Amino acid sequence: MPNKKDDVYGDHISHKFNNELTELKTQFLNMGGLVESQVERAVQALVDGDGHQAEDVRAGDKRVDKMEVDLDEEATLIIARRQPTARDLRLVIAVIKMVADLERVGDEAKKIAKMAIKLSEEGQAPRGYVEIRHIATHVLSMLHDALDAFARLDSEQALRVMKEDKRVDEEYQAAARTLLTFMMEDTRNISRCMSVMWVLRALERVGDHACNIAENVIFMVKGEDVRHTPVEEAEKVVGR
Amino acid sequence: MPNKKDDVYGDHISHKFNNELTELKTQFLNMGGLVESQVERAVQALVDGDGHQAEDVRAGDKRVDKMEVDLDEEATLIIARRQPTARDLRLVIAVIKMVADLERVGDEAKKIAKMAIKLSEEGQAPRGYVEIRHIATHVLSMLHDALDAFARLDSEQALRVMKEDKRVDEEYQAAARTLLTFMMEDTRNISRCMSVMWVLRALERVGDHACNIAENVIFMVKGEDVRHTPVEEAEKVVGR
Repeated sequence: MPNKKDDVYGDHISHKFNNELTELKTQFLNMGGLVESQVERAVQALVDGDGHQAEDVRAGDKRVDKMEVDLDEEATLIIARRQPTARDLRLVIAVIKMVADLERVGDEAKKIAKMAIKLSEEGQAPRGYVEIRHIATHVLSMLHDALDAFARLDSEQALRVMKEDKRVDEEYQAAARTLLTFMMEDTRNISRCMSVMWVLRALERVGDHACNIAENVIFMVKGEDVRHTPVEEAEKVVGR
Repeated sequence: MPNKKDDVYGDHISHKFNNELTELKTQFLNMGGLVESQVERAVQALVDGDGHQAEDVRAGDKRVDKMEVDLDEEATLIIARRQPTARDLRLVIAVIKMVADLERVGDEAKKIAKMAIKLSEEGQAPRGYVEIRHIATHVLSMLHDALDAFARLDSEQALRVMKEDKRVDEEYQAAARTLLTFMMEDTRNISRCMSVMWVLRALERVGDHACNIAENVIFMVKGEDVRHTPVEEAEKVVGR
Protein backbone atom coordinates (compact mmCIF):
# COMPACT_ATOMS: atom_id res chain seq x y z
CA MET A 1 0.00 0.00 0.00
CA PRO A 2 2.26 2.77 -1.21
CA ASN A 3 -0.40 5.42 -0.61
CA LYS A 4 -0.73 4.48 3.00
CA LYS A 5 3.02 4.61 3.36
CA ASP A 6 3.14 8.01 1.66
CA ASP A 7 0.54 9.34 4.03
CA VAL A 8 2.42 8.10 7.03
CA TYR A 9 5.57 9.63 5.65
CA GLY A 10 3.76 12.89 4.87
CA ASP A 11 2.24 12.97 8.34
CA HIS A 12 5.62 12.37 9.84
CA ILE A 13 7.14 15.32 7.95
CA SER A 14 4.27 17.63 8.76
CA HIS A 15 4.33 16.50 12.37
CA LYS A 16 8.01 17.35 12.61
CA PHE A 17 7.39 20.66 10.89
CA ASN A 18 4.64 21.54 13.38
CA ASN A 19 6.95 20.63 16.23
CA GLU A 20 9.59 22.93 14.81
CA LEU A 21 7.14 25.82 14.54
CA THR A 22 5.92 25.23 18.10
CA GLU A 23 9.51 25.10 19.30
CA LEU A 24 10.25 28.39 17.50
CA LYS A 25 7.26 30.03 19.17
CA THR A 26 8.29 28.68 22.58
CA GLN A 27 11.86 29.90 22.16
CA PHE A 28 10.58 33.31 21.10
CA LEU A 29 8.33 33.54 24.15
CA ASN A 30 11.24 32.49 26.37
CA MET A 31 13.31 35.31 24.92
CA GLY A 32 10.35 37.64 25.50
CA GLY A 33 10.13 36.55 29.14
CA LEU A 34 13.83 37.17 29.60
CA VAL A 35 13.80 40.71 28.19
CA GLU A 36 10.68 41.56 30.20
CA SER A 37 12.52 40.57 33.35
CA GLN A 38 15.64 42.47 32.20
CA VAL A 39 13.64 45.72 31.89
CA GLU A 40 11.83 45.09 35.16
CA ARG A 41 15.02 44.36 37.07
CA ALA A 42 16.88 47.33 35.53
CA VAL A 43 14.16 49.73 36.64
CA GLN A 44 14.04 48.13 40.09
CA ALA A 45 17.84 48.42 40.42
CA LEU A 46 17.59 52.10 39.47
CA VAL A 47 14.82 52.90 41.93
CA ASP A 48 16.55 50.96 44.73
CA GLY A 49 19.97 52.42 43.90
CA ASP A 50 21.16 48.79 43.71
CA GLY A 51 24.35 48.80 41.63
CA HIS A 52 24.82 45.07 42.18
CA GLN A 53 21.52 44.12 40.56
CA ALA A 54 22.20 46.61 37.74
CA GLU A 55 25.49 44.83 37.01
CA ASP A 56 23.56 41.58 36.93
CA VAL A 57 21.20 43.00 34.28
CA ARG A 58 24.12 44.20 32.17
CA ALA A 59 25.68 40.75 32.30
CA GLY A 60 22.30 39.18 31.43
CA ASP A 61 22.22 40.95 28.07
CA LYS A 62 24.64 38.37 26.73
CA ARG A 63 21.95 35.72 27.15
CA VAL A 64 19.49 37.91 25.23
CA ASP A 65 22.00 38.31 22.40
CA LYS A 66 22.63 34.56 22.31
CA MET A 67 18.89 33.88 22.06
CA GLU A 68 18.60 36.33 19.16
CA VAL A 69 21.33 34.55 17.20
CA ASP A 70 19.88 31.08 17.96
CA LEU A 71 16.33 32.06 17.04
CA ASP A 72 17.43 33.66 13.78
CA GLU A 73 19.35 30.54 12.87
CA GLU A 74 16.43 28.28 13.74
CA ALA A 75 14.00 30.42 11.69
CA THR A 76 16.33 30.43 8.68
CA LEU A 77 16.75 26.64 8.91
CA ILE A 78 12.98 26.15 8.98
CA ILE A 79 12.58 28.22 5.81
CA ALA A 80 15.40 26.36 4.05
CA ARG A 81 14.27 22.88 5.09
CA ARG A 82 10.48 23.15 5.17
CA GLN A 83 9.85 25.87 2.61
CA PRO A 84 6.78 27.12 4.43
CA THR A 85 4.17 29.18 2.60
CA ALA A 86 1.20 31.38 3.51
CA ARG A 87 0.46 31.53 7.23
CA ASP A 88 3.45 29.42 8.29
CA LEU A 89 5.83 31.62 6.31
CA ARG A 90 4.28 34.74 7.82
CA LEU A 91 4.86 33.27 11.27
CA VAL A 92 8.54 32.56 10.61
CA ILE A 93 9.19 35.96 9.03
CA ALA A 94 7.33 37.74 11.82
CA VAL A 95 9.49 35.90 14.36
CA ILE A 96 12.66 37.05 12.57
CA LYS A 97 11.47 40.65 12.77
CA MET A 98 10.15 40.47 16.34
CA VAL A 99 13.37 38.88 17.57
CA ALA A 100 15.18 42.05 16.46
CA ASP A 101 12.69 44.08 18.50
CA LEU A 102 13.23 41.93 21.59
CA GLU A 103 16.97 42.24 21.24
CA ARG A 104 16.62 46.03 21.16
CA VAL A 105 14.39 45.96 24.23
CA GLY A 106 17.25 44.03 25.85
CA ASP A 107 19.63 46.82 24.81
CA GLU A 108 17.35 49.42 26.38
CA ALA A 109 17.35 47.39 29.63
CA LYS A 110 21.15 47.41 29.50
CA LYS A 111 21.18 51.20 29.04
CA ILE A 112 18.83 51.62 32.01
CA ALA A 113 21.11 49.39 34.07
CA LYS A 114 24.10 51.56 33.11
CA MET A 115 22.25 54.67 34.24
CA ALA A 116 21.27 52.85 37.45
CA ILE A 117 24.95 52.20 38.17
CA LYS A 118 25.86 55.83 37.42
CA LEU A 119 23.05 57.19 39.58
CA SER A 120 23.73 54.81 42.48
CA GLU A 121 27.35 56.00 42.51
CA GLU A 122 26.30 59.66 42.49
CA GLY A 123 23.79 59.13 45.31
CA GLN A 124 20.01 59.30 45.22
CA ALA A 125 18.18 61.30 42.56
CA PRO A 126 14.59 60.94 43.71
CA ARG A 127 13.37 63.49 41.18
CA GLY A 128 11.88 61.89 38.14
CA TYR A 129 11.68 58.46 39.74
CA VAL A 130 7.90 58.66 40.05
CA GLU A 131 7.73 59.26 36.30
CA ILE A 132 10.12 56.39 35.61
CA ARG A 133 8.08 53.96 37.68
CA HIS A 134 4.88 55.09 36.02
CA ILE A 135 6.09 54.76 32.42
CA ALA A 136 7.94 51.53 33.23
CA THR A 137 4.75 49.91 34.51
CA HIS A 138 2.92 51.06 31.41
CA VAL A 139 5.41 49.84 28.80
CA LEU A 140 6.03 46.58 30.65
CA SER A 141 2.33 45.79 30.52
CA MET A 142 2.35 46.66 26.78
CA LEU A 143 5.25 44.30 26.21
CA HIS A 144 3.59 41.56 28.22
CA ASP A 145 0.31 41.99 26.35
CA ALA A 146 2.08 41.99 22.96
CA LEU A 147 3.83 38.70 23.80
CA ASP A 148 0.57 37.30 25.09
CA ALA A 149 -1.18 38.37 21.87
CA PHE A 150 1.52 36.47 19.97
CA ALA A 151 1.15 33.36 22.14
CA ARG A 152 -2.62 33.28 21.58
CA LEU A 153 -2.56 34.78 18.06
CA ASP A 154 -5.00 37.36 19.38
CA SER A 155 -5.15 40.27 16.94
CA GLU A 156 -7.63 42.20 19.08
CA GLN A 157 -5.25 42.26 22.00
CA ALA A 158 -2.47 43.30 19.61
CA LEU A 159 -4.66 46.20 18.50
CA ARG A 160 -5.11 47.30 22.11
CA VAL A 161 -1.31 47.38 22.51
CA MET A 162 -1.02 49.56 19.40
CA LYS A 163 -3.51 51.99 20.90
CA GLU A 164 -1.49 52.34 24.10
CA ASP A 165 1.55 53.68 22.26
CA LYS A 166 0.12 57.17 21.90
CA ARG A 167 -0.57 57.38 25.63
CA VAL A 168 3.00 56.38 26.45
CA ASP A 169 4.29 59.10 24.12
CA GLU A 170 2.15 61.66 25.93
CA GLU A 171 3.35 60.45 29.33
CA TYR A 172 6.92 60.63 28.11
CA GLN A 173 6.50 64.19 26.83
CA ALA A 174 4.95 65.28 30.14
CA ALA A 175 7.74 63.63 32.14
CA ALA A 176 10.42 65.25 29.94
CA ARG A 177 8.85 68.67 30.55
CA THR A 178 8.85 68.08 34.31
CA LEU A 179 12.52 67.14 34.24
CA LEU A 180 13.36 70.22 32.20
CA THR A 181 11.82 72.31 34.95
CA PHE A 182 13.96 70.59 37.60
CA MET A 183 17.03 71.29 35.52
CA MET A 184 16.20 74.96 35.18
CA GLU A 185 15.50 75.32 38.90
CA ASP A 186 18.99 74.32 39.87
CA THR A 187 21.93 73.64 37.57
CA ARG A 188 23.23 71.07 40.06
CA ASN A 189 20.29 68.89 39.01
CA ILE A 190 21.26 68.88 35.34
CA SER A 191 23.58 65.90 35.12
CA ARG A 192 21.36 63.61 37.18
CA CYS A 193 18.22 64.77 35.42
CA MET A 194 19.86 63.98 32.08
CA SER A 195 20.44 60.41 33.25
CA VAL A 196 16.79 60.15 34.26
CA MET A 197 15.85 61.58 30.84
CA TRP A 198 17.80 58.83 29.05
CA VAL A 199 15.99 56.23 31.14
CA LEU A 200 12.62 57.71 30.20
CA ARG A 201 13.64 57.68 26.57
CA ALA A 202 14.75 54.06 26.81
CA LEU A 203 11.38 53.12 28.33
CA GLU A 204 9.52 54.99 25.61
CA ARG A 205 11.48 52.92 23.07
CA VAL A 206 10.41 49.73 24.85
CA GLY A 207 6.82 50.83 24.21
CA ASP A 208 7.64 51.33 20.52
CA HIS A 209 9.05 47.82 20.27
CA ALA A 210 6.00 46.34 22.01
CA CYS A 211 3.96 48.14 19.40
CA ASN A 212 6.08 46.68 16.57
CA ILE A 213 5.51 43.19 17.99
CA ALA A 214 1.76 43.85 18.11
CA GLU A 215 1.79 44.96 14.45
CA ASN A 216 3.56 41.74 13.53
CA VAL A 217 0.94 39.68 15.36
CA ILE A 218 -1.78 41.35 13.28
CA PHE A 219 0.26 40.65 10.15
CA MET A 220 0.57 36.97 11.13
CA VAL A 221 -3.11 36.54 11.88
CA LYS A 222 -4.66 38.76 9.22
CA GLY A 223 -1.98 38.73 6.54
CA GLU A 224 -2.08 42.51 6.30
CA ASP A 225 0.69 44.94 7.05
CA VAL A 226 -0.68 47.55 9.46
CA ARG A 227 2.57 49.39 10.07
CA HIS A 228 2.45 53.05 9.17
CA THR A 229 -1.33 52.95 8.93
CA PRO A 230 -3.62 54.96 11.22
CA VAL A 231 -5.07 52.98 14.15
CA GLU A 232 -8.57 53.24 12.61
CA GLU A 233 -7.24 51.39 9.56
CA ALA A 234 -5.72 48.67 11.75
CA GLU A 235 -9.05 48.45 13.55
CA LYS A 236 -10.82 47.64 10.28
CA VAL A 237 -8.24 44.97 9.42
CA VAL A 238 -8.64 43.30 12.83
CA GLY A 239 -12.44 43.52 12.63
CA ARG A 240 -12.54 41.56 9.37
CA MET B 1 14.15 16.61 -27.18
CA PRO B 2 12.48 16.77 -23.78
CA ASN B 3 15.76 17.34 -21.98
CA LYS B 4 16.54 20.39 -24.03
CA LYS B 5 13.04 21.68 -23.35
CA ASP B 6 13.48 21.05 -19.63
CA ASP B 7 16.72 22.95 -19.62
CA VAL B 8 15.18 25.89 -21.37
CA TYR B 9 12.31 25.83 -18.90
CA GLY B 10 14.73 25.55 -15.98
CA ASP B 11 16.84 28.38 -17.34
CA HIS B 12 13.76 30.48 -17.73
CA ILE B 13 12.74 29.97 -14.08
CA SER B 14 16.22 30.62 -12.77
CA HIS B 15 16.56 33.64 -15.06
CA LYS B 16 13.35 35.09 -13.63
CA PHE B 17 14.50 34.27 -10.12
CA ASN B 18 17.80 36.05 -10.68
CA ASN B 19 15.93 39.05 -12.03
CA GLU B 20 13.78 39.11 -8.92
CA LEU B 21 16.81 39.02 -6.64
CA THR B 22 18.49 41.80 -8.64
CA GLU B 23 15.30 43.83 -8.47
CA LEU B 24 15.14 43.29 -4.69
CA LYS B 25 18.71 44.51 -4.32
CA THR B 26 18.04 47.54 -6.51
CA GLN B 27 14.93 48.46 -4.56
CA PHE B 28 16.84 48.10 -1.31
CA LEU B 29 19.61 50.38 -2.56
CA ASN B 30 17.01 52.91 -3.72
CA MET B 31 15.53 52.93 -0.24
CA GLY B 32 19.05 53.33 1.14
CA GLY B 33 19.66 56.32 -1.14
CA LEU B 34 16.42 57.90 -0.01
CA VAL B 35 17.13 57.59 3.72
CA GLU B 36 20.68 58.84 3.22
CA SER B 37 19.29 61.97 1.61
CA GLN B 38 16.65 62.27 4.35
CA VAL B 39 19.33 62.37 7.05
CA GLU B 40 21.50 64.72 5.04
CA ARG B 41 18.66 67.14 4.34
CA ALA B 42 17.39 67.04 7.93
CA VAL B 43 20.82 68.00 9.25
CA GLN B 44 21.18 70.72 6.59
CA ALA B 45 17.73 72.11 7.48
CA LEU B 46 18.76 72.20 11.12
CA VAL B 47 22.06 73.96 10.50
CA ASP B 48 20.44 76.44 8.09
CA GLY B 49 17.44 77.02 10.37
CA ASP B 50 15.33 76.12 7.33
CA GLY B 51 11.90 75.07 8.66
CA HIS B 52 10.57 74.63 5.14
CA GLN B 53 13.12 72.00 4.19
CA ALA B 54 12.61 70.31 7.56
CA GLU B 55 8.88 69.99 6.79
CA ASP B 56 9.82 68.48 3.46
CA VAL B 57 11.93 65.83 5.20
CA ARG B 58 9.09 64.99 7.58
CA ALA B 59 6.72 64.53 4.67
CA GLY B 60 9.32 62.41 2.85
CA ASP B 61 9.24 59.80 5.61
CA LYS B 62 5.97 58.48 4.13
CA ARG B 63 7.92 57.39 1.05
CA VAL B 64 10.45 55.60 3.24
CA ASP B 65 7.64 53.76 5.05
CA LYS B 66 6.03 52.79 1.75
CA MET B 67 9.32 51.38 0.48
CA GLU B 68 9.69 49.32 3.67
CA VAL B 69 6.26 47.73 3.21
CA ASP B 70 6.86 47.07 -0.51
CA LEU B 71 10.29 45.55 0.02
CA ASP B 72 9.05 43.28 2.82
CA GLU B 73 6.22 42.07 0.62
CA GLU B 74 8.55 41.45 -2.31
CA ALA B 75 11.02 39.54 -0.13
CA THR B 76 8.26 37.37 1.35
CA LEU B 77 6.89 36.63 -2.13
CA ILE B 78 10.32 35.56 -3.34
CA ILE B 79 10.65 33.12 -0.44
CA ALA B 80 7.15 31.72 -1.01
CA ARG B 81 7.49 31.39 -4.80
CA ARG B 82 11.16 30.53 -5.31
CA GLN B 83 11.98 28.76 -2.04
CA PRO B 84 15.56 29.98 -2.12
CA THR B 85 18.23 28.18 -0.09
CA ALA B 86 21.78 28.84 1.06
CA ARG B 87 23.25 32.11 -0.21
CA ASP B 88 20.05 33.30 -1.92
CA LEU B 89 18.02 32.72 1.22
CA ARG B 90 20.62 34.58 3.28
CA LEU B 91 20.33 37.51 0.88
CA VAL B 92 16.54 37.68 1.16
CA ILE B 93 16.53 37.35 4.95
CA ALA B 94 19.31 39.93 5.29
CA VAL B 95 17.26 42.33 3.15
CA ILE B 96 14.22 41.85 5.42
CA LYS B 97 16.36 42.75 8.44
CA MET B 98 18.24 45.62 6.81
CA VAL B 99 15.01 47.18 5.55
CA ALA B 100 13.94 47.52 9.20
CA ASP B 101 17.23 49.32 9.89
CA LEU B 102 16.74 51.70 6.98
CA GLU B 103 13.21 52.47 8.10
CA ARG B 104 14.55 53.36 11.54
CA VAL B 105 17.21 55.58 10.02
CA GLY B 106 14.31 57.29 8.24
CA ASP B 107 12.61 57.75 11.63
CA GLU B 108 15.76 59.32 13.04
CA ALA B 109 15.84 61.75 10.08
CA LYS B 110 12.23 62.65 10.87
CA LYS B 111 13.13 63.28 14.53
CA ILE B 112 16.03 65.52 13.46
CA ALA B 113 13.66 67.41 11.14
CA LYS B 114 11.24 67.92 14.03
CA MET B 115 14.04 69.36 16.16
CA ALA B 116 15.10 71.55 13.21
CA ILE B 117 11.59 73.01 13.10
CA LYS B 118 11.55 73.58 16.86
CA LEU B 119 14.99 75.20 16.83
CA SER B 120 14.26 77.37 13.79
CA GLU B 121 11.17 78.71 15.57
CA GLU B 122 13.14 79.45 18.74
CA GLY B 123 15.92 81.23 16.84
CA GLN B 124 19.52 80.15 16.27
CA ALA B 125 21.25 77.80 18.67
CA PRO B 126 24.79 77.83 17.28
CA ARG B 127 26.14 75.89 20.24
CA GLY B 128 26.52 72.21 19.52
CA TYR B 129 26.10 72.68 15.76
CA VAL B 130 29.78 72.02 15.12
CA GLU B 131 29.39 68.69 16.92
CA ILE B 132 26.23 67.88 14.95
CA ARG B 133 27.92 68.55 11.62
CA HIS B 134 30.90 66.49 12.62
CA ILE B 135 28.98 63.40 13.77
CA ALA B 136 26.52 63.73 10.87
CA THR B 137 29.35 63.59 8.33
CA HIS B 138 30.79 60.59 10.08
CA VAL B 139 27.61 58.50 10.33
CA LEU B 140 26.51 59.44 6.80
CA SER B 141 29.75 58.11 5.43
CA MET B 142 29.28 54.93 7.48
CA LEU B 143 25.78 54.50 6.06
CA HIS B 144 27.01 55.13 2.55
CA ASP B 145 29.87 52.65 2.93
CA ALA B 146 27.54 50.01 4.43
CA LEU B 147 25.18 50.31 1.45
CA ASP B 148 28.12 50.24 -0.91
CA ALA B 149 29.44 47.11 0.82
CA PHE B 150 26.01 45.54 0.24
CA ALA B 151 25.95 46.56 -3.44
CA ARG B 152 29.38 45.03 -4.04
CA LEU B 153 29.04 42.21 -1.46
CA ASP B 154 32.28 43.50 0.01
CA SER B 155 32.74 42.04 3.49
CA GLU B 156 36.01 43.90 4.06
CA GLN B 157 34.34 47.25 3.57
CA ALA B 158 31.54 46.07 5.89
CA LEU B 159 34.17 45.28 8.51
CA ARG B 160 35.58 48.81 8.21
CA VAL B 161 32.09 50.21 8.88
CA MET B 162 31.79 48.04 12.00
CA LYS B 163 35.09 49.44 13.26
CA GLU B 164 33.90 53.04 12.87
CA ASP B 165 31.05 52.53 15.32
CA LYS B 166 33.25 52.78 18.39
CA ARG B 167 34.68 56.11 17.19
CA VAL B 168 31.19 57.54 16.68
CA ASP B 169 30.24 56.49 20.21
CA GLU B 170 33.29 58.32 21.55
CA GLU B 171 32.48 61.44 19.53
CA TYR B 172 28.92 61.31 20.78
CA GLN B 173 30.04 61.03 24.42
CA ALA B 174 32.41 63.98 24.01
CA ALA B 175 29.71 66.11 22.36
CA ALA B 176 27.21 65.24 25.09
CA ARG B 177 29.71 66.34 27.75
CA THR B 178 30.28 69.67 25.93
CA LEU B 179 26.54 70.29 25.79
CA LEU B 180 26.17 69.51 29.48
CA THR B 181 28.73 72.24 30.18
CA PHE B 182 26.74 74.76 28.09
CA MET B 183 23.62 73.86 30.04
CA MET B 184 25.33 74.35 33.38
CA GLU B 185 26.80 77.70 32.33
CA ASP B 186 23.41 79.25 31.74
CA THR B 187 20.01 77.70 32.45
CA ARG B 188 18.58 79.63 29.49
CA ASN B 189 20.58 77.26 27.28
CA ILE B 190 18.97 74.12 28.68
CA SER B 191 15.94 73.70 26.45
CA ARG B 192 17.83 74.36 23.22
CA CYS B 193 20.77 72.21 24.30
CA MET B 194 18.35 69.37 25.00
CA SER B 195 17.10 69.58 21.42
CA VAL B 196 20.68 69.48 20.16
CA MET B 197 21.28 66.49 22.45
CA TRP B 198 18.36 64.57 20.88
CA VAL B 199 19.78 65.28 17.45
CA LEU B 200 23.18 63.93 18.48
CA ARG B 201 21.51 60.84 19.88
CA ALA B 202 19.55 60.35 16.66
CA LEU B 203 22.76 60.57 14.65
CA GLU B 204 24.50 58.13 16.93
CA ARG B 205 21.61 55.71 16.26
CA VAL B 206 22.11 56.16 12.50
CA GLY B 207 25.66 54.93 13.06
CA ASP B 208 24.32 51.87 14.92
CA HIS B 209 22.00 51.03 12.03
CA ALA B 210 24.82 51.41 9.50
CA CYS B 211 26.73 48.96 11.65
CA ASN B 212 23.79 46.51 11.67
CA ILE B 213 23.66 46.68 7.87
CA ALA B 214 27.40 45.98 7.72
CA GLU B 215 26.97 42.93 9.98
CA ASN B 216 24.26 41.63 7.66
CA VAL B 217 26.54 42.05 4.65
CA ILE B 218 29.16 39.89 6.36
CA PHE B 219 26.44 37.33 7.16
CA MET B 220 25.35 37.29 3.51
CA VAL B 221 28.85 36.88 2.15
CA LYS B 222 30.41 34.65 4.79
CA GLY B 223 27.35 32.89 6.19
CA GLU B 224 28.40 33.70 9.73
CA ASP B 225 26.59 35.81 12.26
CA VAL B 226 29.05 38.41 13.59
CA ARG B 227 26.57 40.36 15.70
CA HIS B 228 27.51 40.52 19.36
CA THR B 229 31.00 39.24 18.61
CA PRO B 230 34.14 41.31 19.23
CA VAL B 231 35.53 43.06 16.14
CA GLU B 232 38.61 40.79 16.24
CA GLU B 233 36.28 37.82 15.82
CA ALA B 234 34.54 39.48 12.86
CA GLU B 235 37.97 40.19 11.42
CA LYS B 236 38.80 36.48 11.43
CA VAL B 237 35.49 35.62 9.76
CA VAL B 238 36.06 38.17 6.99
CA GLY B 239 39.67 37.04 6.54
CA ARG B 240 38.61 33.45 5.80
